[in-house]
Amino acid sequence: MTLIQEKATQAIDILKEKEIDLWITFVRETSGVRDPAMDFLFGLGDLTWPSALMLTRSGERIAIVGRYETEVVERLGVYSKVIGYDAGISHVLVETIRQINPRQIAVNTSHNNVHADGLTHAMYEMLTSYLKGSPYAERLVSSEPVINALRGRKSPAEVERIRQAIATTAEIYSEIFAFLRVGKTELEVAKFAHGLVNQHGLGTAWEIEQCPMVNAGPESPVGHSGPTELTIQPGQLVHFDFGVRQDDYCSDIQRLAYVLRPGEMQAPPEVQHGFEVIRQAIEAARAALKPGLPGKQIDATARAVVTGAGFEEYKYATGHQLGRVAHDGGALLGPPWERYGESPDQLVESGNVFTIEPGLALPGYGYVGLEEDVLITENGAQYLGAPQADLVLIQA
Amino acid sequence: MTLIQEKATQAIDILKEKEIDLWITFVRETSGVRDPAMDFLFGLGDLTWPSALMLTRSGERIAIVGRYETEVVERLGVYSKVIGYDAGISHVLVETIRQINPRQIAVNTSHNNVHADGLTHAMYEMLTSYLKGSPYAERLVSSEPVINALRGRKSPAEVERIRQAIATTAEIYSEIFAFLRVGKTELEVAKFAHGLVNQHGLGTAWEIEQCPMVNAGPESPVGHSGPTELTIQPGQLVHFDFGVRQDDYCSDIQRLAYVLRPGEMQAPPEVQHGFEVIRQAIEAARAALKPGLPGKQIDATARAVVTGAGFEEYKYATGHQLGRVAHDGGALLGPPWERYGESPDQLVESGNVFTIEPGLALPGYGYVGLEEDVLITENGAQYLGAPQADLVLIQA
Repeated sequence: MTLIQEKATQAIDILKEKEIDLWITFVRETSGVRDPAMDFLFGLGDLTWPSALMLTRSGERIAIVGRYETEVVERLGVYSKVIGYDAGISHVLVETIRQINPRQIAVNTSHNNVHADGLTHAMYEMLTSYLKGSPYAERLVSSEPVINALRGRKSPAEVERIRQAIATTAEIYSEIFAFLRVGKTELEVAKFAHGLVNQHGLGTAWEIEQCPMVNAGPESPVGHSGPTELTIQPGQLVHFDFGVRQDDYCSDIQRLAYVLRPGEMQAPPEVQHGFEVIRQAIEAARAALKPGLPGKQIDATARAVVTGAGFEEYKYATGHQLGRVAHDGGALLGPPWERYGESPDQLVESGNVFTIEPGLALPGYGYVGLEEDVLITENGAQYLGAPQADLVLIQA
Repeated sequence: MTLIQEKATQAIDILKEKEIDLWITFVRETSGVRDPAMDFLFGLGDLTWPSALMLTRSGERIAIVGRYETEVVERLGVYSKVIGYDAGISHVLVETIRQINPRQIAVNTSHNNVHADGLTHAMYEMLTSYLKGSPYAERLVSSEPVINALRGRKSPAEVERIRQAIATTAEIYSEIFAFLRVGKTELEVAKFAHGLVNQHGLGTAWEIEQCPMVNAGPESPVGHSGPTELTIQPGQLVHFDFGVRQDDYCSDIQRLAYVLRPGEMQAPPEVQHGFEVIRQAIEAARAALKPGLPGKQIDATARAVVTGAGFEEYKYATGHQLGRVAHDGGALLGPPWERYGESPDQLVESGNVFTIEPGLALPGYGYVGLEEDVLITENGAQYLGAPQADLVLIQA
């Protein structure tokens, strides 16, 4: 079974669970604007003409596409009924909906999750104009709960891909650490990392200008700005945030190194302490992570370890889901802050993959941040790769 | 000047011309859903938090982005004012709009052009909810005319990139023709082409499974289905549709070969005639192409050559625009059919790049199609590469 056949079957189970009669992914020219649900319902290719990919609670799988694209859709082995049209989609789409006679029609619009928000405003207008005068125009609902579950509950094949991306990331990190020297710039280190990603024939997990992020010492801006000309200096931390995309699935891992001063054999006690606090915060979150808990509860657990040790709290969520993209949506291990919407209230589920990434600033040294990726099972959370146990020490 | 600096300046001129006070590209997590306007306003990277990229008729260039992303936006050298926010974008966005006090606010929603339709329905709802109670909620208009002009009017730097992609495509075609042999499958030929694209370090102009399209003989389905196991046979046509993406700009070229039967020195007269009809249709369209004409007039010119020679008319548009994607939107050299909306009525402009691609079916031989790419200038249309002048002949 291909991954998209597997996910389409899973989607129908989710429609039953969520009691949604019909889910329509309504798209056109996906090379121009691509609904993220296409990855699960169609694969990497594109559709040209207005197209409706429809799954129903009763198990129907219907695709309505331009005549020239019926064959490529049939080859997917996902849709039991592939309807081609010539002049326009409206008539056949409305007729098909009439036959299904759904009480709810889920469409891809969502305030909370960009990955459930692939329907453009103009396509929404077109769909509602087609349905005008029928009872169905009033039955549109957001597919967010369906997509959150579909993206969030990884199949064994998806977990395996993520595990492989994480293993590759660990290999690349080993080579990066061997490359670190006093005087090298953040940009030089990033360029070296890009060479390794290329050698593996892979892509980075997020935009390459910021992947890896490399933060050398306390002056380096942490956040969404790329590596700079700052150089690696003795007595400072070098912090990384990095991941690869392998077989369409991502890793997202932070690692930390300390550059020894001449004569130093280990990091100063305050650096070692900061590292241990973050280690403990991660392990506390992992141990607390269980299906059925709201993400904010896990966030609070990790956050309390950092603030309890007297550090200022980090200004972002403890962790996010990971999958086809580094920042996958749905339940978030985040604080109940306005900018996170409802996602910290959503419940952790078995099959979810989360990052755990608390951090703290150590004045004079730099940023202390680690990030591990974990899989939620019925029995709790498992690390998907070996977590960083010790500070990486770089000789001056 | 970078390409996006050049295009932002051009966009302000277009706002003046179209008499639109403010254009807002309102996006979030563009790694998930990417507004195609981002290519021109930001470049290849992504923005994470809700962000507004704003250009005004009076020349202001304002970006409102999440605090962590101000630096990366400042580095673009496009926006004279970069505003970072922490909690939420709504307040600062509304205040900024109030100060501009625009009579029209163009947003990226369009029924006709997917490349002007990057605003999702949920983002549209958010924007209108922010503006509720102000006079501005009623002033939203479609940015389609702005985006059509911005994408359609190529700068010299953009034309140069397209020209280079076309030159590379010609090189790759030469190698493909040398590779063609009786008995090879469409899939083998496509795989060979992919190897060449890879060697050049490029991508294909559209999804790789259908680029090149290879049609061996009359049984091969022409359209949006990929190459098959059909083999190249003597006495048949082999038709290609292929392009590369080089420096983010595309080529889109069709070529035609005939496989000689044992003893044949040239193609049969009916094949040669079909080829000449298509050649003439292309040249008639090119000669007719001038700024200020509606696309449908050019379509009618080429179409009449094919039907005038007694062939059935082709069921698609004679040509489309070409740029960052193979099918760029805006004015279309198309017939006034419902499925093309208003795009055949739109006017050809200087700086546009169009494909010209009429076709006809030759029963028993296969599909006769050629596609050339042309640049519109004040003095008419120029081929951007050498057009195919003779049938490529393959020895049996």
